[in-house]
Amino acid sequence: MIKIALAQINSTVGDLKGNSEKIIETVKKARKNKANFIVFPELALTGYPPEDLLLKNYFIKQNYKFLNKIKKETAGITLLIGFVDKNGLKTYNSCAIIQDREVIDIYHKIYLPNYGVFDEKRYFFPGDTLPIYEINKKKFTLTICQDIWVKEHLNTLKEKKLDFIINISASPFSIKKNKQRQKVLSSLAKNTKSFIFYSNLVGGQDEIVFDGNSLIYSPEGEPLKQAGKFQTDTLYFNLKKYKKRAIKIKSNKIENIYSALSLGVKDYMIKNNFKKAILGLSGGLDSAVTLAIVAKAIGSNKINALIMPSRYSSPESLTDAIKLCKNLKIKYYKIRIDNIFDNFNLNLKPYFKNLPTDSSEENLQARIRGNILMAFSNKFGHLVITTGNKSEISCGYCTLYGDMAGGFSVLKDVYKTSVYQLAHFINQKDKKRIIPESIIKKAPSAELRPNQKDTDSLPEYELLDKILHLYIEENLGFQEIIDNGFDEQIVKKIIKMVDASEYKRRQAPIGIKISERAFGKDRRMPITNNFTS
Amino acid sequence: MIKIALAQINSTVGDLKGNSEKIIETVKKARKNKANFIVFPELALTGYPPEDLLLKNYFIKQNYKFLNKIKKETAGITLLIGFVDKNGLKTYNSCAIIQDREVIDIYHKIYLPNYGVFDEKRYFFPGDTLPIYEINKKKFTLTICQDIWVKEHLNTLKEKKLDFIINISASPFSIKKNKQRQKVLSSLAKNTKSFIFYSNLVGGQDEIVFDGNSLIYSPEGEPLKQAGKFQTDTLYFNLKKYKKRAIKIKSNKIENIYSALSLGVKDYMIKNNFKKAILGLSGGLDSAVTLAIVAKAIGSNKINALIMPSRYSSPESLTDAIKLCKNLKIKYYKIRIDNIFDNFNLNLKPYFKNLPTDSSEENLQARIRGNILMAFSNKFGHLVITTGNKSEISCGYCTLYGDMAGGFSVLKDVYKTSVYQLAHFINQKDKKRIIPESIIKKAPSAELRPNQKDTDSLPEYELLDKILHLYIEENLGFQEIIDNGFDEQIVKKIIKMVDASEYKRRQAPIGIKISERAFGKDRRMPITNNFTS
Repeated sequence: MIKIALAQINSTVGDLKGNSEKIIETVKKARKNKANFIVFPELALTGYPPEDLLLKNYFIKQNYKFLNKIKKETAGITLLIGFVDKNGLKTYNSCAIIQDREVIDIYHKIYLPNYGVFDEKRYFFPGDTLPIYEINKKKFTLTICQDIWVKEHLNTLKEKKLDFIINISASPFSIKKNKQRQKVLSSLAKNTKSFIFYSNLVGGQDEIVFDGNSLIYSPEGEPLKQAGKFQTDTLYFNLKKYKKRAIKIKSNKIENIYSALSLGVKDYMIKNNFKKAILGLSGGLDSAVTLAIVAKAIGSNKINALIMPSRYSSPESLTDAIKLCKNLKIKYYKIRIDNIFDNFNLNLKPYFKNLPTDSSEENLQARIRGNILMAFSNKFGHLVITTGNKSEISCGYCTLYGDMAGGFSVLKDVYKTSVYQLAHFINQKDKKRIIPESIIKKAPSAELRPNQKDTDSLPEYELLDKILHLYIEENLGFQEIIDNGFDEQIVKKIIKMVDASEYKRRQAPIGIKISERAFGKDRRMPITNNFTS
Repeated sequence: MIKIALAQINSTVGDLKGNSEKIIETVKKARKNKANFIVFPELALTGYPPEDLLLKNYFIKQNYKFLNKIKKETAGITLLIGFVDKNGLKTYNSCAIIQDREVIDIYHKIYLPNYGVFDEKRYFFPGDTLPIYEINKKKFTLTICQDIWVKEHLNTLKEKKLDFIINISASPFSIKKNKQRQKVLSSLAKNTKSFIFYSNLVGGQDEIVFDGNSLIYSPEGEPLKQAGKFQTDTLYFNLKKYKKRAIKIKSNKIENIYSALSLGVKDYMIKNNFKKAILGLSGGLDSAVTLAIVAKAIGSNKINALIMPSRYSSPESLTDAIKLCKNLKIKYYKIRIDNIFDNFNLNLKPYFKNLPTDSSEENLQARIRGNILMAFSNKFGHLVITTGNKSEISCGYCTLYGDMAGGFSVLKDVYKTSVYQLAHFINQKDKKRIIPESIIKKAPSAELRPNQKDTDSLPEYELLDKILHLYIEENLGFQEIIDNGFDEQIVKKIIKMVDASEYKRRQAPIGIKISERAFGKDRRMPITNNFTS
């Protein structure tokens, strides 16, 4: 009898001790549930991605030490676990197959992703052997993540007449990823006529969030079981007692984004040992949505808001911000910035003389707010959360060291049009109007000069986001975007803004990737770049 | 008769038009000098590294368009030039061999570096063919950069009985790189008994600086000619008129570092179209050395200094700063920050109450200075240059959005002990004491609280830099560093500081790589990282 457990755990990069304890605890629980074949995700022992930790010999050594500890817990069972194997100078992304306290084989990942956020060829040497194992007369093989996304490999698998295929993964969330994964798994099952056991990591790690969603597919290509989304979970499956009954996989785009953002910020705080967070609340939509997400993710008592009005802040912004804090039961502080701003202007006057006020003065206000947030952070150890969205960050419509100041960005990869959708989702979710309607309805403004509107500098967000998507996610050039029916002048202006603000993005705090192409490790553009698309 | 020209040009990433114009101009000049075989560096047409521009189809298309323009200039001559070739879905790091207005072959780089600052496997597919060409009865082959650093390839080359080997490179400067290159080239020459023509890029590109230093080696492994260091140059060599006369390659470590920093900052300004720069001058060593380097690199009239004393600034710092400006003929402005600082404290008092002053208040002063610098930058379009050194940035002994605020960092990869060496080098170079002796002699201090000294927080720099070198450049762990004879407590403290300040470095401006392992693209550490070395 084989009873499989797919152990979808939340590892922390580098935390070999903590991860191995989590693994051992999960093994004990799975044993209680009579599982005798326990499968952990890719690099579950080290966390994913360990990046340049992999260049430290001492790190690799320690990873063996903790693998040995795990080995001791496998009396009478089979355990598969992702770890780092090294032979001579060659480091491998590996899976140990442990049976009854013996490592009976080590599989080396064959196909190493080196695109998007992935740099596996920087670290790993590819494996070259497809193993076939037999246990209780069941024939199976083992693959790691990318291995099953490669057609050549699929063809090799077809010929082997397997009962099942294991895939251990560290596959990060992005909006389209779930559907793609389901397609790959289903087609793999059908083509090989075997069960597929897909064990994915869960949890936030810097820019990326692993969504879990571990899956089991029937040899007919139907999904049989799915583990929890964005949460630790273990999926059990008894190969003998299997009944042909496909499940329906439900998925809601905005709910997924909401969950990814929540888990991303929560895990960043937990794993970096932040007890509390703080953010600047303007009365606008972005900071409202950010605050609501964070408050729900970590608890209202663990985040404070700083409201920092100036003479350009509208009275509505102030009342809206306070109303939101009350709705969410958030502690807030109010600090006016005018006297500080006036003193800056006083000291600058001898040099700026009678030059017209411009973005210099606007940025100065944003930077004063950034300084106050950072002063709270320094004094009380709070994590400063930034609130800018992807539309702004794309166009550089944000202030370096001002509203961009902070340790973690929640909406960095969320276009403004999706921020609206998130606001509606939040208000519908608990059937409670958390975000005041006036915040959603008012015209977006940075409130850094009298009567300022976002549309003074940017096209309407509906239009802007479509063009940004083509330029950033789809990698289209100027002419190709025009060919999609957009106005030449607007496209030219937007591309110029995006290209010119690369230096700002390079100094932006990290934020959660949800799209097919996020800023950060996912999109690597030179700052010095004279190409005109 | 073959007269070779190694055209060491300074390309700009993405500037296909500008680069091709430079190439055509160089071709015309080389023709005048009777060269009939002109060799340009790796990716000379696109600049190196184009990074994610390579994922844009339109970029590849344009690169062909400009290659065709260059082709037309090759009547009667042979021209080798690095460009991007794409067949179907496969993109190659390539060299076009153009003869008499025809592309007679395209070589695809075989060995793609994917370590350190290099990500070539992210973009390129490896070539698999070693071509043998014949021209005027001379047999030769072609290699691109890394190809000749790989032993297997060397063995293949040995059997071919070649007259000469061309290597086109985009090999960035680092302290040890020159010696390594010379060793590789000499051994290649000796082993293959052929001439080596090594054509390297020159110029700054974001974090990296190509140092030129193109070289010609005799079949006996002796260097025959070397192109200019850190400057555009063309090296000519007539295969027929060759006389066995080896040159001596001279190299001075601090001079090389000085030149790399100068070219790096100069090219960043030129290529990003900055007319002027500005920096905060404290009266301390780092800002003094930075100012001297930048003033010499771009001209004293193109950089201004901001002196921003507070009540904690010593009178000596102020007089030293002014003396330096006079020595360098730098325009400076003096803006006191006390009134602004007091107003911040006033507004924060209701919340900070009677809590003791700490790094919050120190950082606040640094951030006020950062804001003033950025206000000047916004108002006048100046590039803000930051002045922190590698020892500080390693330990996080610097203020995010404070002294770290700016677009480009000159000393980011220079340890404090080397900053002292640079100061002495600068003062000896023109036989003029540029940097006042008092700046070099006084104990380093951030002057953010009364009587502050760097040694309050950090070990002596002599000791600190040695440990940092082992941890960062050599990748050693805690125990391994101790085994090198260092104190346990100090090592533990330093490692902790380095690990804990990863989030700061992620938001730091880019700066020039000079070491074997710089921060930035060269060292990719997770922020969320619970590994204890």
